[in-house]
Amino acid sequence: MAVRPPALHGGNVYAAARELRQPVDALLDFSASINPLGPSPCAVRALKQAIALIGHYPDPDCTDLKTALASRLRVSTASITIGNGSSELIQVLPRVLNTRHALIVGPTFSSYASAVELGGGACSFLLASRRENYRPPLERILRSFIIHRKKGRPVDTVFLCNPNSPTGQLCDSRELVRVVRTACDEGVWVVLDETFIEYCPAQSMLKLLSACPRLVILRSFTKFYALPGLRVGYAIASRAVTAGLQRWLPTWSVNSAAQLAAVAALCDHRHAARSLTYMDSERKRFLRKLSGLRGVTPIPTHCSFVLLELPTAKSRIASIRSLRQKGILVRDCSTIRGLTPRTIRVAVRSRNENDRFVSAIKALVS
Amino acid sequence: MAVRPPALHGGNVYAAARELRQPVDALLDFSASINPLGPSPCAVRALKQAIALIGHYPDPDCTDLKTALASRLRVSTASITIGNGSSELIQVLPRVLNTRHALIVGPTFSSYASAVELGGGACSFLLASRRENYRPPLERILRSFIIHRKKGRPVDTVFLCNPNSPTGQLCDSRELVRVVRTACDEGVWVVLDETFIEYCPAQSMLKLLSACPRLVILRSFTKFYALPGLRVGYAIASRAVTAGLQRWLPTWSVNSAAQLAAVAALCDHRHAARSLTYMDSERKRFLRKLSGLRGVTPIPTHCSFVLLELPTAKSRIASIRSLRQKGILVRDCSTIRGLTPRTIRVAVRSRNENDRFVSAIKALVS
Repeated sequence: MAVRPPALHGGNVYAAARELRQPVDALLDFSASINPLGPSPCAVRALKQAIALIGHYPDPDCTDLKTALASRLRVSTASITIGNGSSELIQVLPRVLNTRHALIVGPTFSSYASAVELGGGACSFLLASRRENYRPPLERILRSFIIHRKKGRPVDTVFLCNPNSPTGQLCDSRELVRVVRTACDEGVWVVLDETFIEYCPAQSMLKLLSACPRLVILRSFTKFYALPGLRVGYAIASRAVTAGLQRWLPTWSVNSAAQLAAVAALCDHRHAARSLTYMDSERKRFLRKLSGLRGVTPIPTHCSFVLLELPTAKSRIASIRSLRQKGILVRDCSTIRGLTPRTIRVAVRSRNENDRFVSAIKALVS
Repeated sequence: MAVRPPALHGGNVYAAARELRQPVDALLDFSASINPLGPSPCAVRALKQAIALIGHYPDPDCTDLKTALASRLRVSTASITIGNGSSELIQVLPRVLNTRHALIVGPTFSSYASAVELGGGACSFLLASRRENYRPPLERILRSFIIHRKKGRPVDTVFLCNPNSPTGQLCDSRELVRVVRTACDEGVWVVLDETFIEYCPAQSMLKLLSACPRLVILRSFTKFYALPGLRVGYAIASRAVTAGLQRWLPTWSVNSAAQLAAVAALCDHRHAARSLTYMDSERKRFLRKLSGLRGVTPIPTHCSFVLLELPTAKSRIASIRSLRQKGILVRDCSTIRGLTPRTIRVAVRSRNENDRFVSAIKALVS
């Protein structure tokens, strides 16, 4: 039951920097899918101001951040819980929801299963198929409920990431509404991780929250707002779940710098719009370039990353190693349940950096 | 089972600022006992540099901070766990140690009991007496083990804070060694919170760690290093406990700014020495001034705060309210188990600020 993903999985640029004896900024990190335009300049300015406040405990209620989010999302502040990254919220949710048997719709993040197991629950997996380009198998979720109920092990919680990481696939919106409604009617919790939803905001299920008290939506300032170093994520849920989460989180779990930067980032509409426009065009261009390479199969994506299949498991290992020696980090996806051992994930970065990646991988697999 | 202390308990300067419609910096916060000289200038410089790194995930292994601590404390990096404040570590420890029945030596922080209860365990309390100026009742701990064993509810974990908050009292060093050794021999965990130990470093029980694998020491960068806003604390324990803690903590629980600032703070010996010298002399002066006031009884202290008794519970309530209206926050200790309802705690701050407090409280109680 590994809670911490192995270093190769991405997000550990410090370990790579030590290994390669290079400064962190000299590396090209395609392993974490952070907005390539970086954090909002307003967030950076807020951080400079935050330095004056580090001698005080943070606001344990995250009042300003909750108010800003509530106004933006048109929800009540009482439905918002701020966490030390959404990873902290994922970690405690199974205990808050008393999850005994979770259905995890994958291939996806391994942290949902780790959290369920840490809370003493068990997991079943419902995996999208490679043949269908990892289209989320929503139509099988409700059938799965029936099968597990018949076996005497009913599902009490579904974990679903939309758009999904690392496949980059979006759920069919109408089908997702039906699944959430039916699950809630049957007393099953739905934890919907919308950590990449800013790239396709119309697909959010926020609108279902008032009608479906068993829906828990997770979001984060890590990806689109590019603040992974500060740790700030949030859950939007019923008042009962919000109270439960608060009970399980340590007081002062969200540092002052994170709170201030997140509020500032949220208010910078210009940077957000620019980030969306950039990602829309550069993702297309990057995908086109990657599709033109022999031996590389990119899976179409709605996110800020692309899933790539290389010719063989062996070429995956060799490519990751060679790229790493060149200071280019990618996410090894071979150990993610439901993906082929030929799979890696790469972020969409700046035009110039993406071109460098294309040249590097071309030299390796062609 | 309240996990979050009520706002009046201190450490919530933001709530007070909102209530009083004043900026946070206009308030005189005597409620949190933070080093009055503030964070090290090296830590502040490190924070400015940290801004460039917020677009990367933090180092999940806190490598540099663990290395700096290991070298300073002469322990192995494998015995150190860094947490999002020591409050995060306190929160998960009962689950890591599988605490079913804790003995809490008080009057002390309420978070030990909350954490034990959250983990499904029960607490018994061993309280120092007012008559003895809250001298820690170490001699009663071992007796307590026997009594609870006879009752069929053996103690499996002791929580002890040294020097203790909010009483400011130090354990007798020889007696404490005996208690820790005996507890470990009897298979009882000792969680020793040394969050204020920097003010009396010779009293640390670090030296016992190798001989007593059931000893867990907690420390923090919140108080002496004056970094409460960033959230960084640590545990020093056996490898087994370290592995257990790591399993229960979310990945990336410690943000990059906290890691960088803590390393810088730890290396600034000059600021540390200056802080100790200042506290030694100003604590004496402040205590002398407070002792001269009619109606105020200060309890002698070894820490960066003073416990004060006012004439009555009523005068406590009135004083807290009046001080708050003047923008002076103190810690209401009346709800802490084992303290009289006449008790408040105040930090030792700058000479000028302490004088302002003395004048204000004098006007209220004389």
